[in-house]
Amino acid sequence: MAEDLSDLRYQIALANRLLTNEGVLDAFGHVSMRHPTDPGCYLLSRSRSPGVIEAGDILEFTLDSEPVVPPTVQLYAERVIHGCIYQARPDVTAVCHHHAPAVMPFCIAGVPIVPVFHLGAAGGETVPFWNQNDEFGDTNLLVVKPEEGRSLARALGSRAAVLMNNHGATVVGRDLRELVSRSIFMCQNADYQLRAQLLGKVATLTAGETKLAGTLNAMPNVTNRTWEYWTLRLARTGGLPPRASVSKARPQAASKARTSSPRTPTRDQGVRKNRRRR
Amino acid sequence: MAEDLSDLRYQIALANRLLTNEGVLDAFGHVSMRHPTDPGCYLLSRSRSPGVIEAGDILEFTLDSEPVVPPTVQLYAERVIHGCIYQARPDVTAVCHHHAPAVMPFCIAGVPIVPVFHLGAAGGETVPFWNQNDEFGDTNLLVVKPEEGRSLARALGSRAAVLMNNHGATVVGRDLRELVSRSIFMCQNADYQLRAQLLGKVATLTAGETKLAGTLNAMPNVTNRTWEYWTLRLARTGGLPPRASVSKARPQAASKARTSSPRTPTRDQGVRKNRRRR
Amino acid sequence: MAEDLSDLRYQIALANRLLTNEGVLDAFGHVSMRHPTDPGCYLLSRSRSPGVIEAGDILEFTLDSEPVVPPTVQLYAERVIHGCIYQARPDVTAVCHHHAPAVMPFCIAGVPIVPVFHLGAAGGETVPFWNQNDEFGDTNLLVVKPEEGRSLARALGSRAAVLMNNHGATVVGRDLRELVSRSIFMCQNADYQLRAQLLGKVATLTAGETKLAGTLNAMPNVTNRTWEYWTLRLARTGGLPPRASVSKARPQAASKARTSSPRTPTRDQGVRKNRRRR
Amino acid sequence: MAEDLSDLRYQIALANRLLTNEGVLDAFGHVSMRHPTDPGCYLLSRSRSPGVIEAGDILEFTLDSEPVVPPTVQLYAERVIHGCIYQARPDVTAVCHHHAPAVMPFCIAGVPIVPVFHLGAAGGETVPFWNQNDEFGDTNLLVVKPEEGRSLARALGSRAAVLMNNHGATVVGRDLRELVSRSIFMCQNADYQLRAQLLGKVATLTAGETKLAGTLNAMPNVTNRTWEYWTLRLARTGGLPPRASVSKARPQAASKARTSSPRTPTRDQGVRKNRRRR
Repeated sequence: MAEDLSDLRYQIALANRLLTNEGVLDAFGHVSMRHPTDPGCYLLSRSRSPGVIEAGDILEFTLDSEPVVPPTVQLYAERVIHGCIYQARPDVTAVCHHHAPAVMPFCIAGVPIVPVFHLGAAGGETVPFWNQNDEFGDTNLLVVKPEEGRSLARALGSRAAVLMNNHGATVVGRDLRELVSRSIFMCQNADYQLRAQLLGKVATLTAGETKLAGTLNAMPNVTNRTWEYWTLRLARTGGLPPRASVSKARPQAASKARTSSPRTPTRDQGVRKNRRRR
Repeated sequence: MAEDLSDLRYQIALANRLLTNEGVLDAFGHVSMRHPTDPGCYLLSRSRSPGVIEAGDILEFTLDSEPVVPPTVQLYAERVIHGCIYQARPDVTAVCHHHAPAVMPFCIAGVPIVPVFHLGAAGGETVPFWNQNDEFGDTNLLVVKPEEGRSLARALGSRAAVLMNNHGATVVGRDLRELVSRSIFMCQNADYQLRAQLLGKVATLTAGETKLAGTLNAMPNVTNRTWEYWTLRLARTGGLPPRASVSKARPQAASKARTSSPRTPTRDQGVRKNRRRR
Repeated sequence: MAEDLSDLRYQIALANRLLTNEGVLDAFGHVSMRHPTDPGCYLLSRSRSPGVIEAGDILEFTLDSEPVVPPTVQLYAERVIHGCIYQARPDVTAVCHHHAPAVMPFCIAGVPIVPVFHLGAAGGETVPFWNQNDEFGDTNLLVVKPEEGRSLARALGSRAAVLMNNHGATVVGRDLRELVSRSIFMCQNADYQLRAQLLGKVATLTAGETKLAGTLNAMPNVTNRTWEYWTLRLARTGGLPPRASVSKARPQAASKARTSSPRTPTRDQGVRKNRRRR
Repeated sequence: MAEDLSDLRYQIALANRLLTNEGVLDAFGHVSMRHPTDPGCYLLSRSRSPGVIEAGDILEFTLDSEPVVPPTVQLYAERVIHGCIYQARPDVTAVCHHHAPAVMPFCIAGVPIVPVFHLGAAGGETVPFWNQNDEFGDTNLLVVKPEEGRSLARALGSRAAVLMNNHGATVVGRDLRELVSRSIFMCQNADYQLRAQLLGKVATLTAGETKLAGTLNAMPNVTNRTWEYWTLRLARTGGLPPRASVSKARPQAASKARTSSPRTPTRDQGVRKNRRRR
């Protein structure tokens, strides 16, 4: 299991970099994953741009978005997005928050994203719109308070994604590969929808087509094929996360949080036990 | 002849990668070629993203889109697109199915692509539109049943390409180089047409100009020049298919299907004979 | 202190290259910084495209935009933009003038850039518009006369940036990193605003949101994170400025202007004293 | 002088590659230069995509667009564009014909390109529009007959560039560097003009501004600075022409045409003399 977690950390770093390379993430945005054996816990990087994240940057958090090990590094301000969605959605295993250029016009104009091609069905029939100002008035638009995270999770409901006014989007998935595919296809869908509207009338998929195509898109043969492709594209840029488990840039807290570290298993387990007792 | 087929497999892999590098293909889409000496057979990759295909991935299929050798790898779900078009169009030697971003707005808005510049004449005077829902109702939009493939081929008729509602396009050619040129120029044409419409009124080529320019575009001196250029662009990215005939990633079935393999000629020929007896 | 100035020159060269790599600068545009210990002086490159600037190209200028050391190289024609803003704005430590493609449509159509996403708040609630023709009639549109620079500075007022008709924009910051972030986010904001307008109605941030988000965006944890990210992106292209302090391409005047040079400190100090006596 | 011509061939190859790298040329388009000492002759590549041209590909042509040395390689079909303009315009030293994506919408919609930013003034106050069909009826849209080239040259008149219906543009310059700058800035101008029109009302430069800014743009300090920048960008892609004067890809005719070849000066001079006697 310790080995699995080490690999998972690598996969999460890889997902962050794939999404950066495909234009979904940039200096901002983040990808998390629910802990594989402890559903009350999730894995998320320390505060860094997603395109430079390494396996050693991935830390563990409770669903209240508190770090399992007291951190010595800076954390993302918006991690309640992840914790609150994992609390509300037991079926969700992976979450991505982003400000992709393709979706921003929709977040600004308040126009719904609708499925306009078969792969766009990955986003479902409707992408709900959450206006932070409606409930919380003027803010800096970051989702930092637990009540803001819970409000966003309510707006998401049982859907695959939610748009956030003048800010970006949050996407969920049943696994990391579905999340990555869905995030990328939703951006392509948004781009095609905007240009189709400029060209003429937008014809959407029917409800039946959306369901059938959406089911297909989530199948492993599809998500594995796209994962291979996007990984190759990233590899060609020299952007794969380093495989070596020990990095000079690795922060102390991340080191402590590693269950795979031969020197800290007891403490690590102890922390998790403590958390569970709360 | 065995040598030629080995080179043809390389050329098909190269065509897949050229079209990926020029933005026509991405994680999806595929390019096939009719068998050079057996017109009742065509060559198509196993299921992989086109940008990573190697010569060893190219398998043989009957025009019913059944693999000539029982496969041990996954096949493209939509290969009936290729088989049905080769059945209906004896003049066609190469087929490409894609979801290029440039044509998607036209597939969504239902606006016809018309020739707006001399190289765009490669697509012909009219690109017909096929709406899968009209005949088959709600589907996942993939073309997987023989009757769907035949319907698409009927919509294509004698034309150079056909648009597919909310899905993409299928393009045909008399040889691989014409197919690649036509696919790329049709995307450029679509991009220019959309932006010209935003700017003002779209002036199309006359029927006479389309015929004259279309004839010119198909001449070998044009398609060879563009092939050299796109190959060089691909080479600069390090994306050429590997030349070595033995690859670690090569699946078993592909290996069996190789007529150039010194160890399997008898079996390979035997399989083809069997198919012909059906 | 001499060491600091050497490093500052490197940082200014780096800022020029980061902004080129992110599409804000191209063959033209420039970034300056106020002298760290002499507020009556600023640092700016000799006339070169910003993407190729090295530390040795950075020269010192008085706020009248006269070179501190008589130059043997060509100087930017528009350096009064920098000098006049440093005169009018004691709070400003860094200035960037650019013709970024993202802002050009706004400079041509005279449409105001307004904050449409949280990071776009970095540009403030309003970006004023300066029309050079109003005050100076027909010119070649370059800002070369002191009175033109002063007019531009007046139009800028206490804002973060100013648009210049049919020309480009000038952005200011309290430090180099804030300037770089603000310049890039303002371009993203302009791009999103244009596409949101094509899609539907543009919803801007409220005044309260703009203030809160703008404050957040200027915090070091944000500007340091983006600086790391953009530097990494530049490094991957091989585009970082050379670290070696002696370059063959280094012009003579730049060499003389170096306070870190062990051979010219007396003369360098003398020149600055002379300037102060004026 | 022989040395100069050898360097000129390199500069022409470089110009072709710079313009390809900046998105003006692609698989098609060509750049020529008037012979430096024989104004009745011009230099142009054999038929190749401009991004792969080497110095050894550059051949000599009379102003009737006949090759000075009988060619053993394929020639551009449209070289009368160059010859006819050199005949009509003694002030022109360099010509570029291209199908840049940025200008295509204007060639299709018939909307005039007007100067909308200071660097765009390089194209002059007006870019005339030439409709080949008006005079020649249905063609394949290539300019191949001398009368077509002369008609195009008449439409160009004394201007800097001319748009060609559903085809592209032809740009002229007083030297190679001005030509390259003008071609690139005209594309930027077209892009900004289109997006400004989508955003609101397009404000053009006044006649006075166009003249003043146009004069500035043609000054060597501007064209040299941009030349350095674009060359660096090309160098970073590994795309500079090979410096070695002997290339395996060099065609025989090009070899014969070299005045710098120690073995063929007599014949080369003889050919030119013969031509002059006609």
